[in-house]
Amino acid sequence: MTASFVTGAAGFIGSALVDGLLSEGHLVVGYDNFSSGREAFLEKAFAHPNFKLARGDISDETALESAMKGSDVVWHLSANADVRFGLEHPQKDLIENTIGTFKVLEAMRRNDVRDIIFSSTGSVYGEATVIPTPEDAPFPIQTSLYASSKLSGEALISSYCHGYGFRGVVFRFVSMLGERYTHGHIFDFVKHLLKEPRSLPVLGDGTQRKSYLYVKDCIEAMLKVSSKMPDCFEVFNLGADEYCTVLDSIGWITSFMKLSPKLEFSGGDRGWVGDNPFIFLDTSKIRSLGWSNSLSIRQGVERTVQWLLDNRWILER
Amino acid sequence: MTASFVTGAAGFIGSALVDGLLSEGHLVVGYDNFSSGREAFLEKAFAHPNFKLARGDISDETALESAMKGSDVVWHLSANADVRFGLEHPQKDLIENTIGTFKVLEAMRRNDVRDIIFSSTGSVYGEATVIPTPEDAPFPIQTSLYASSKLSGEALISSYCHGYGFRGVVFRFVSMLGERYTHGHIFDFVKHLLKEPRSLPVLGDGTQRKSYLYVKDCIEAMLKVSSKMPDCFEVFNLGADEYCTVLDSIGWITSFMKLSPKLEFSGGDRGWVGDNPFIFLDTSKIRSLGWSNSLSIRQGVERTVQWLLDNRWILER
Repeated sequence: MTASFVTGAAGFIGSALVDGLLSEGHLVVGYDNFSSGREAFLEKAFAHPNFKLARGDISDETALESAMKGSDVVWHLSANADVRFGLEHPQKDLIENTIGTFKVLEAMRRNDVRDIIFSSTGSVYGEATVIPTPEDAPFPIQTSLYASSKLSGEALISSYCHGYGFRGVVFRFVSMLGERYTHGHIFDFVKHLLKEPRSLPVLGDGTQRKSYLYVKDCIEAMLKVSSKMPDCFEVFNLGADEYCTVLDSIGWITSFMKLSPKLEFSGGDRGWVGDNPFIFLDTSKIRSLGWSNSLSIRQGVERTVQWLLDNRWILER
Repeated sequence: MTASFVTGAAGFIGSALVDGLLSEGHLVVGYDNFSSGREAFLEKAFAHPNFKLARGDISDETALESAMKGSDVVWHLSANADVRFGLEHPQKDLIENTIGTFKVLEAMRRNDVRDIIFSSTGSVYGEATVIPTPEDAPFPIQTSLYASSKLSGEALISSYCHGYGFRGVVFRFVSMLGERYTHGHIFDFVKHLLKEPRSLPVLGDGTQRKSYLYVKDCIEAMLKVSSKMPDCFEVFNLGADEYCTVLDSIGWITSFMKLSPKLEFSGGDRGWVGDNPFIFLDTSKIRSLGWSNSLSIRQGVERTVQWLLDNRWILER
C-alpha cells in the first residue's frame, strides 16, 4: 500500500487529491497549516481509516520531517496562493514557495523519500510566444513573483532528481475549477452578484483569454502519471484543450445565475500587473498517456458556481 | 557621474569589473564579505579616489542597504562560487544565490535604486538540445543546484522589472579566464603540475567540450550593454565564438609550461554529477551590438597560466 504525503492537503486542489488517493487505496498523511486550507474540505477524508492529518507549517523543518516519516511519495501542493497581491509582500512567495519547496526536499532526503510530485503553474511561461504552449517552449521571461517562485521550486526538484537520485514530476497547471474553489474571478463574481446582482466590476477589459481545468480531471491526470514514475524528472502541462475569455465566463456565470448585471470594466488588457493576458497550454504530452478532460470549461464554471451557491459560508470572508 | 554598486567586488570577475568601471569614470562602491574574494585583487582600486570598499555579507540586510545608499546601478556578482560541491551543502546555493539576490533586490527597493545587472551562467540551459544555445532556447531542465539558484535569481530580477519598474540585464556567462582566475580546472592543473609535473589526473574522459571567455572581454561586453539599459529586462549570452575540449586546454597548458605529463583519466563523459558535458552559447545577440572577444580561448588559457605562474601565492590554499 503506497504511503502518500500531501502538503497543502486542506486546500482546494490538495483536498481533492487526498480524496482521490484514498479512493485509489493509498495511505495518506495530509500536512497543512490551515492558513488558507479548510478543515471542512477534509470531512470525507477524516471519515476514512487510511487518512491522518498532521498540522504544521512548511517552514517547520522538525514537524515536516517527523510527519513525513514512513512515506513513499510526496505530493507537494502547499504554496502561497495569493498570486494577485504578490507585489505587496514579495517575501511571501520566496519563503512559502521557493524556500518551502527546499525544506520539503530536505525533509525527503532526511527521511529517504525519493519520489516527489509538484504542482507548478502555466504562469512560468510568462508572456508565451508559442500558443498553445508546450513544455519545451522558448526559455521564458518571468513576469510575476509567484511564477518565479514556482519556477525556482521546479528547478530545485529537477536538481535533486539529477543530484540525489530523486524521481520527480512537475505539473504546470492552468487555473482549476470545481468543488471547493476558494479564490479567483468566479469566486469574486459570484460573491458580488449575490450581494449586488445589477452590476459587476470587471478587472481589465474582459478580453483576457484563460484556460481552466476541472479539478477532478486534474487529479485523475496526476494519479495516472504517478502510477508510473519517470526514471528521473518529467514536466507535464495540465489544462483543458480549449480556452475562454473573461467575458465568456461572465456570460456562463450570469446565465447560470439567471442575472443580467451591467458590466463595469476597469480597462487595460490584463487584470493586474504580472497577470498573463493569455495562458493556453499544449497538453498533448499528458494526452498521449490516454488522459483527457471530462468536463468542458463551461461545465467546470457551472459546477463551480453551483458549489459556491450550495456553500455560501465560503463566500463569507 | 554614475554611482555603481558592485557585490562580490573582490572576486575574480567582480574586481575586473571594478577596475573597468573606475577607468570608465564611475564612482564605485565594492561590497564583499571576503569569503572567497581577495583584498589583493582590489589593490589597483584602493589606489583610485573614486573607489570605496564596504565589507559585508549579502545576507546582512542592514549593512547591504546602508552600503548601497546613493547608488544608481547595482552589479550583482556575488555568489556561491563552489559549483562542483553543491551537493554536499545544498543550502549554500539557496542562501547565497537565491535568497542573496532577493536581499539585493529588496535593498534596491528601499534605496530606490532601479537598475540591476546580474551575472548568471550558461549552466541554466542544463543539457541543451540546441547548440550553440541561444537565449530563447527550449525551456531547460535544471541539472545542478548552482544553475537552479542562478535561474531563481534571474526570475526574481525579471519579476522585479515587471512588477516594480526595475530595469535589468542578465548575462549568462561561460567560464571565465584571465588575470585573478582562482578556481576551475586550469587552476587545479597548474597547481598540480607545479608540484608533480610528470602526471596529471583528469576528471571524466577529457572530451568534455567547454567554452570560455577572457575576463576583460566579458567586462567590455557588460559595460557596453549597461551604457544603454533596456526599458525592462534583457538577457545576453556571453562567451567566445568557439569551444575546446578539456584535452585541448590540457595541451595548451602543458605546452605553455613546457611539460609532458602522463594523463590519468577518472572516466565518464563529465567531470562530476551536474556538470554539463557541453556548454557552447550562441552569442549573436551581444555581437549584434558591436562587441566581439579580443582573445581566443587558447590565448585566454595561456594568459591564465601566465598569471598563475606569476602569482603562485594564489595556489597556496
